[in-house]
Amino acid sequence: MASYQAPLRDMRFILDEVFQAPQEWSAMPATQELGMDLVEAILEEGARVVKAELFPLNQSGDAEGCRFEKGEVTTPQGFKAAFDTLAEGGWWGLGGNPAYGGQGMPKMLTVAFEEMLYAANASFALYPALNTGAALLLDQHASEDIKRLYLPKMYAGQWLGTMCLTEPHCGTDLGLIKTRAVPANDGTYRITGTKIWITGGEHDMAENIVHLVLAKLPDAPEGSRGISLFLVPKVKVAADGILGERNALSCGGLEHKMGIKGSATCVMNFDGAQGMLIGEPHHGLTTMFTMMNYERLSIGIQGLGLGEVAYQSAMDFARERLQSRAPGGAVAPDKPADPILVHPDVRRMALNVRAWNEGGRAFAAFVASQLDRAKYHPHAEARTVAEELVALLTPVAKAFLTDRGFDATVEAQQIYGGSGYCVEWGAEQFVRDARIAMIYEGTNGIQAMDLVGRKLFRNRGAYLSRFARAMRADLGGEVPAEIDSFHQACQKELARLERVSARLLERAQRRPEELGAAAVDYLNLLGHVAYAWMWWKMARAAQQGLQTAGPAGDGFYHAKLAVGKHFLTRMLPRVEALERQIQAGAEPLMMLDEQAFYPQG
Amino acid sequence: MASYQAPLRDMRFILDEVFQAPQEWSAMPATQELGMDLVEAILEEGARVVKAELFPLNQSGDAEGCRFEKGEVTTPQGFKAAFDTLAEGGWWGLGGNPAYGGQGMPKMLTVAFEEMLYAANASFALYPALNTGAALLLDQHASEDIKRLYLPKMYAGQWLGTMCLTEPHCGTDLGLIKTRAVPANDGTYRITGTKIWITGGEHDMAENIVHLVLAKLPDAPEGSRGISLFLVPKVKVAADGILGERNALSCGGLEHKMGIKGSATCVMNFDGAQGMLIGEPHHGLTTMFTMMNYERLSIGIQGLGLGEVAYQSAMDFARERLQSRAPGGAVAPDKPADPILVHPDVRRMALNVRAWNEGGRAFAAFVASQLDRAKYHPHAEARTVAEELVALLTPVAKAFLTDRGFDATVEAQQIYGGSGYCVEWGAEQFVRDARIAMIYEGTNGIQAMDLVGRKLFRNRGAYLSRFARAMRADLGGEVPAEIDSFHQACQKELARLERVSARLLERAQRRPEELGAAAVDYLNLLGHVAYAWMWWKMARAAQQGLQTAGPAGDGFYHAKLAVGKHFLTRMLPRVEALERQIQAGAEPLMMLDEQAFYPQG
Repeated sequence: MASYQAPLRDMRFILDEVFQAPQEWSAMPATQELGMDLVEAILEEGARVVKAELFPLNQSGDAEGCRFEKGEVTTPQGFKAAFDTLAEGGWWGLGGNPAYGGQGMPKMLTVAFEEMLYAANASFALYPALNTGAALLLDQHASEDIKRLYLPKMYAGQWLGTMCLTEPHCGTDLGLIKTRAVPANDGTYRITGTKIWITGGEHDMAENIVHLVLAKLPDAPEGSRGISLFLVPKVKVAADGILGERNALSCGGLEHKMGIKGSATCVMNFDGAQGMLIGEPHHGLTTMFTMMNYERLSIGIQGLGLGEVAYQSAMDFARERLQSRAPGGAVAPDKPADPILVHPDVRRMALNVRAWNEGGRAFAAFVASQLDRAKYHPHAEARTVAEELVALLTPVAKAFLTDRGFDATVEAQQIYGGSGYCVEWGAEQFVRDARIAMIYEGTNGIQAMDLVGRKLFRNRGAYLSRFARAMRADLGGEVPAEIDSFHQACQKELARLERVSARLLERAQRRPEELGAAAVDYLNLLGHVAYAWMWWKMARAAQQGLQTAGPAGDGFYHAKLAVGKHFLTRMLPRVEALERQIQAGAEPLMMLDEQAFYPQG
Repeated sequence: MASYQAPLRDMRFILDEVFQAPQEWSAMPATQELGMDLVEAILEEGARVVKAELFPLNQSGDAEGCRFEKGEVTTPQGFKAAFDTLAEGGWWGLGGNPAYGGQGMPKMLTVAFEEMLYAANASFALYPALNTGAALLLDQHASEDIKRLYLPKMYAGQWLGTMCLTEPHCGTDLGLIKTRAVPANDGTYRITGTKIWITGGEHDMAENIVHLVLAKLPDAPEGSRGISLFLVPKVKVAADGILGERNALSCGGLEHKMGIKGSATCVMNFDGAQGMLIGEPHHGLTTMFTMMNYERLSIGIQGLGLGEVAYQSAMDFARERLQSRAPGGAVAPDKPADPILVHPDVRRMALNVRAWNEGGRAFAAFVASQLDRAKYHPHAEARTVAEELVALLTPVAKAFLTDRGFDATVEAQQIYGGSGYCVEWGAEQFVRDARIAMIYEGTNGIQAMDLVGRKLFRNRGAYLSRFARAMRADLGGEVPAEIDSFHQACQKELARLERVSARLLERAQRRPEELGAAAVDYLNLLGHVAYAWMWWKMARAAQQGLQTAGPAGDGFYHAKLAVGKHFLTRMLPRVEALERQIQAGAEPLMMLDEQAFYPQG
């Protein structure tokens, strides 16, 4: 009884009207042929295919889960067939390198398609999401031979990539990994160790699985500077691309999880498996970050997609549910009660969800546009600016989109009342599926540490200044009176962000705990400011749209401005609290003895 | 791998040091014999029995769930035996009327025991929770004959009560119910209709089930003023208390839910079942509120209990988990990494959970103390004051404790990283089990409407003035410098609450939507202010404790002050945002056309 239709009108608005994507694309040789016509056709077909193939498998996949038997994993019924159908449509290489059979589409387009995938079926979406990131890494760091052998198969969905980082005793702290790589005499390595929580580590969707594995060479320095990266295929690949014998690795079992039950989360045992070094020895973590950064934005999109399907499904319920009368008197006197959207508090919940979703969609598109510039822009300076913005905003995109995505699914569930807790309606699955996104790919706390540590403190605020300059430049020009409140909010909150940042940088020099103490609240503050900026951009585009559209097109723009107004008045105020919380500093967190945290038995 | 030990030290602190419960009790004839010695003995034995009998069934009960076959419901393995063990201990009549075999213990004690029940096994706890509320209703509203027949059995746990309100087309809007009651010629009634979401509607825990059912008499006025209340036993009871034939009612099935899977949530069909009218005809909803108000506080305690077990379990994990080094350098250089509590952000999460839990425990005890006064106090004026405070604070206790309880379980789950998402660790079950508490017993949005409508607007702020006077009186006297920040925060935030309330009352006279638009944020604001008051009380008691305790006892009081400081600096700031959000008013919520909420397919 859940319901989903990709929000194509909103995606078009974002691409064409908010970000003038065709203009962006025309400035870059790799994308200059691209126009909105083709992009719209792709998005429409994407919307059709995820709705027809993936969404119907979402609840059944959750109920069925993955099965593990004798080392083999069976995905839920229908997953394999749907995967193949999309593979035939070329969807798994949408953003891939055309030199190896990819479609070469820009990130601004692929994030929109990824949103559809996660909304329609989050468990399913993880298989291609890992594959896309693995292919991206190989495209940037692997030898020409490996690229020629692997990338066409991965873009075609015949082989699927994974990311093998975590071990039982370490996740965040990868310097502790125990998996070993010993050089063989044929230029390859023998990989031995156990990895856990490996998404798609084993399954029946593809004829081969391409594991990207972090391991330590015999001469590795201690800690995270001693990690190397290896490509370890499930089935060995001959030089001509023919599949050979099974490699010495196996799946040891599946995790039983709160959600994403159609996604196979595997224990993987490597028992002297043959692997190829990717990138430089001991620089595996840096190499891996190509994939991790991709996945971090992707997981942010998981939050967004789930927030969107949760909203649509809740509104589908609200449309039919009659309960009590409007505060000012019946609006449907011919019915036994009014539809629940007459109640201000139900509207508040719906608008909360929508403001997060629409702000998040714009923010994801913004980060994607910077990724496109960083990759394709002909001018080095433009690439550098974009790279710095991406570095600053990747942890925000991962954590803020997933925090708000989870909030969105919980709020949407609340709209149903008791039905939201019953499995049949689907709302509770969205909550369970969204919860993981705050945890994996680096917990949101780790994202916040990355933000305040590497992205703020290490460069003494240089990336943040980039951000502030870009935002301020975008606030220039004439401001129509109708949207002045958006403009004012941006100016005020950007100043707050700069003030808070300066204080934090200053304090962090005196006490090492200050960064960690501020991290999560600071990330939230930056997220709110970034969304305020996005809402300014959307309000401006909607205002322009209102002036040029005929009366038929007005509804969309009016709604956009109303949702934006809700963001300004009902969600943005949280920054007041965040500033005060950050000001509280590390002392109150650190004053208690560690033992005082543990319950006295 | 979850872990729970009832927080006896904190419960004793709250009862004895914060609220001087023995003094309270000595002022009321019904409780004047009670001393801390007996109360501590009861709590210790309660802690022992829930840990031994109920906690071990929590994860297994979730995995197994309830089964429905041929109209019968089987509860998870062990539930029945554990229920009987506690019944033999007299636990199910702990707060019951001594005239009918109850133990007559005050609410201040029983809430502490209820917290243990919910923490140890939330699914299980619902069976006695419904029973206790049903017995309370019968004690207040049933005839002497019915009380003599039913109450001893219910206190003994031989018969168990339910609450049958919701129907497929109505939950919040009970005026729409269709269940009918037709008078028979023997003074009883024939009840016909379908009720859904009936907790414990059918099960194997007791020999009889006592349904309290809302239905409409043939001459009933329209809407909620035409509802009557009936006692409808599963098995008919003869005048001598002997069980006779089965009544004409049956369970039609179980709901499949996100959590509380060991609790049987039933569809109940009444097919001309024999029922006895309880209270006056057409006044059933008012009568039912005796039970509903009980259950609302009880469900608040569900949030608290789950927050507590989530905290303890997360700390059990944190104690063993080594990951990365402290910001200022290794604190456990002999180990491969430091325990994760060295990290400020992990501490922030732990302190968030703890500040909600400890504030919530004090608040629940405060509401309980007012319930005791309302019931037992010899002076009418004292009873009236207490009744008004209870009326104001019941929706806050239900909604704020469950919202914060859910937050607590989610935050505690985050501390685990990936393990928090894996079923075996138990953290994810606490989240699923806590989620329902925001929904049932009147959604938290409905609680907020009750607060701003019936409890604030209808009496033009009279109850709130009671609250403000009580709080202000408690802020009088000398303030030690060490805890002046608590005192100042209370004064400032109480003034904010009064300011916001006055504005809201004024605005609500002009536009009917204003109350609904402000409701949830207002409830949250009042909740924060109430917790600030509780933290002032606790800080004052801890400060006194520090002066009288020897060095051995200092740790507890120091920790209390540190957690309180965390509340002031890290959670209370949210009131700034809440005030601004309330100020936003109804207009931004109501400006969108209803159709604009529905996705355009």
